[in-house]
Amino acid sequence: MSDPKIEHLDQDECLRLISPGGIGRIGYQSLFGPVVLPVNYKLQDGVIVFRTAEHSPMDKDLQTGIAGAEFKVAFEIDEFDLTARSGWSVLVRGSAHRVRPGPEHESAEAVGVEPWPGGDRKLFMSITPTTPGHMTGRRITAP
Amino acid sequence: MSDPKIEHLDQDECLRLISPGGIGRIGYQSLFGPVVLPVNYKLQDGVIVFRTAEHSPMDKDLQTGIAGAEFKVAFEIDEFDLTARSGWSVLVRGSAHRVRPGPEHESAEAVGVEPWPGGDRKLFMSITPTTPGHMTGRRITAP
Repeated sequence: MSDPKIEHLDQDECLRLISPGGIGRIGYQSLFGPVVLPVNYKLQDGVIVFRTAEHSPMDKDLQTGIAGAEFKVAFEIDEFDLTARSGWSVLVRGSAHRVRPGPEHESAEAVGVEPWPGGDRKLFMSITPTTPGHMTGRRITAP
Repeated sequence: MSDPKIEHLDQDECLRLISPGGIGRIGYQSLFGPVVLPVNYKLQDGVIVFRTAEHSPMDKDLQTGIAGAEFKVAFEIDEFDLTARSGWSVLVRGSAHRVRPGPEHESAEAVGVEPWPGGDRKLFMSITPTTPGHMTGRRITAP
């Protein structure tokens, strides 16, 4: 059996693939080691926006790291076809912060990111890619 | 609209959900911050096994952290129905290590974990949950 084709994706293609929003996985270093959690996100002007509850474990983790500095996170989005053994993944590396009240918050609300778990998840968080080079992706195509 | 139901899953249910293997996402702290990458895994006696290429960026990252100590990683597996807005996710927290040559390696080969990208991915890696409590999961069911 020949090997599948692996293709590295440029920034534009990564942005195109992740632009519909959906489920992504946020990864970060918590006090107790690495954590990876799924969240429902939207893309807004090249920035990833999602919601969590104020004082939730994730909020606390992300706050702990901030203290005036950047809190580095990874955000992974993928789509695979298990039968065809093909698919793509995009990795965004950047810093996470709470979306501040004001125009930035209104704009995040307008984009309509809705967490499935519902409840009191009023805290908007955003992830800004550190530099344009911090968005990488690859596509695997079956031979 | 009422909120969906969130249910915390016990260890047995987590193991049952992840036992078929498939795509999981490994998260860890690299020299340049957090990383989350999809890999094809199998479950073998409660241990997660996947493959990577020797001297690949992931191998290097995981080796860097070892130096006699544990290299902590997170491994996330999920399955969501985007239309029904329901699904589950499991988070395994543990340490990653190269599977040593010998019986442990033969047993990992026997379980038949196959990386889609093919090529020279001869290095078996395993993730052992730190303690039984380091496998957590939740299920979201639409109202």
